[in-house]
Amino acid sequence: MERVDAITDVVGLRVGHAQLVGSGALTGTTVVLAPVGGAVAAVDVRGGGPGTHETDALDPRNLVQRVEAVVLTGGSAYGLAAVHGVMAWLEEQGRGVSVGPRPGQVVPVVPAAALLDLGRGGDFAARPDASLGRAAVEAAARTALRAPVLQGCVGAGTGAVAGGLRGGTGSAGIRLESGITVGALAVVNAAGSVVDPHTGALYGEFYCGRVEYPEPSVHQAAQRRLARARAETQSRRHGAEGEHGPLNTTLAVVATDARLTRAQAQKVAGAAHDGLARAIRPVHLMNDGDTVFALSTEEREVPDTATLNAVLAGAADAVMRSIVKAVRAAEGFDGPGGVFPAYGDLY
Amino acid sequence: MERVDAITDVVGLRVGHAQLVGSGALTGTTVVLAPVGGAVAAVDVRGGGPGTHETDALDPRNLVQRVEAVVLTGGSAYGLAAVHGVMAWLEEQGRGVSVGPRPGQVVPVVPAAALLDLGRGGDFAARPDASLGRAAVEAAARTALRAPVLQGCVGAGTGAVAGGLRGGTGSAGIRLESGITVGALAVVNAAGSVVDPHTGALYGEFYCGRVEYPEPSVHQAAQRRLARARAETQSRRHGAEGEHGPLNTTLAVVATDARLTRAQAQKVAGAAHDGLARAIRPVHLMNDGDTVFALSTEEREVPDTATLNAVLAGAADAVMRSIVKAVRAAEGFDGPGGVFPAYGDLY
Repeated sequence: MERVDAITDVVGLRVGHAQLVGSGALTGTTVVLAPVGGAVAAVDVRGGGPGTHETDALDPRNLVQRVEAVVLTGGSAYGLAAVHGVMAWLEEQGRGVSVGPRPGQVVPVVPAAALLDLGRGGDFAARPDASLGRAAVEAAARTALRAPVLQGCVGAGTGAVAGGLRGGTGSAGIRLESGITVGALAVVNAAGSVVDPHTGALYGEFYCGRVEYPEPSVHQAAQRRLARARAETQSRRHGAEGEHGPLNTTLAVVATDARLTRAQAQKVAGAAHDGLARAIRPVHLMNDGDTVFALSTEEREVPDTATLNAVLAGAADAVMRSIVKAVRAAEGFDGPGGVFPAYGDLY
Repeated sequence: MERVDAITDVVGLRVGHAQLVGSGALTGTTVVLAPVGGAVAAVDVRGGGPGTHETDALDPRNLVQRVEAVVLTGGSAYGLAAVHGVMAWLEEQGRGVSVGPRPGQVVPVVPAAALLDLGRGGDFAARPDASLGRAAVEAAARTALRAPVLQGCVGAGTGAVAGGLRGGTGSAGIRLESGITVGALAVVNAAGSVVDPHTGALYGEFYCGRVEYPEPSVHQAAQRRLARARAETQSRRHGAEGEHGPLNTTLAVVATDARLTRAQAQKVAGAAHDGLARAIRPVHLMNDGDTVFALSTEEREVPDTATLNAVLAGAADAVMRSIVKAVRAAEGFDGPGGVFPAYGDLY
């Protein structure tokens, strides 16, 4: 079976993106679509400024056992409107929690989280809506199983910025010794930095063998360019930030074919935050709504604690690698909402 | 004011250690003693195998506003008995929550967490008890304000092991631009590793500028010595692990003179776990009881979100540096319970 180093290595999951770019817009929505019947799901919200939808339903003590889709979206809390397009599509498919005697009488529980990218394209009012959510879930449904995942400035990562650099969407998949697969998709939009200010190296590459540090002259030039871009962005936005300073948020979905209980999935979502901690510094600030969802397709047994531990460790690693891939795939942007260089432009 | 790069840089806090070493024992207890009247306190438990005492009282919705002391202890759940020696001492001082008409009628609420070091000295039954807890709190009370903190294989870190290496107790203090101080004390006893297996560098030193990697030949020799030590430990312990494999736990107290609400302190305890994530990999496994307490002495105002963010980021950094200092201060151990080389012996 060919692997694509993405969350779709967890067989059954599909990813779809939709975005609004131009005419003041720079935002988008990403849907992770579960197989029909849904996936076990959980969430761990660690940031201080979260924007979420239907996360309480995921508490393992509560009723709903599985979800059909998870939505990540730009547009801050406004962007959560995209969920309603995904729900409408799921309702048409008859997918969701049965709440009536007829097959189509369902309520799709669609957990979602939003990141703040308001105004990044210049127009504060350009946000994902229900039609964009529908476009994203339809895009997901059109993909084959095990399809590669589009990365970079697509979907929810379209308007993402991390420490002044253009952020984006990234995805990675890991196969564990047990044969279990752990995949992740991350949308990187952090108040903190993905780049070590001392050296210019990406934090998320510290854990992959000897770091090849950029030349000091390259790093100094990059820092100057980044400082100019930040100043230019401030000027184009009239220096305006809200009372709490810049708001951001890194979002991730981590998924596995390991058969997890909902409580175990919650632990996996928690451990996945260690991937954020390693790749972004600082992270989990009051201005970040950092949220990780976990999905289990329940294909492979978890026979013992050591196997579950490997899933926990793999979740952190898959998220860390997804963040690196997002940053490396991002392209620079220069528009009315600001100048956001890509890491690849600077180093 | 002289700073000691320790949790005692947060003025008012005192640290005391007591340990049991020899005759099969290799364990201990550490007390962080608040000023009279107590400190605002919170906790975040992220490991899968915690051993804790009075942590529910710290929920910001619950009654108790401040605590007089926090206890970290070896001996797994048995070692929580050390708390009762600390409570007895506090009762004698009339320190605790008033529950009766007379000044001395108090109940000291003493949150505590334990790490698993059972059998590390050879005797499974050698554990901290109430008298050891009393010794630790009396040691704390004898120290001056702003006293240096004993580090290495002392107190709760006496029997600590991290990825086969000797762990220990470490402490660090950071002064923020705002003038706020953030300090931490960590006891490093992890199922995961503090050392990058690719290079031999300490994970916790990745974030402090260019890493000076050990020579490959040094790293290879270190890996061989560590493998031999692990095999010898297995043989001395008759290969015996419980059903879940090796149990561990990294514990920390992070403290600040920033005036935090209990809910803010809880966020600080959470952010401090990012220090564990950066310095230990993997971490927060089912076999780890990883727990962080946060204390606020409420001396300095937190005027805005940016200042609180700096405290959150500083908490992660202080814990990360405490872990590095613990590992660098540890000394190797060779006894009936196993062979645990120190990082400094190998690199």
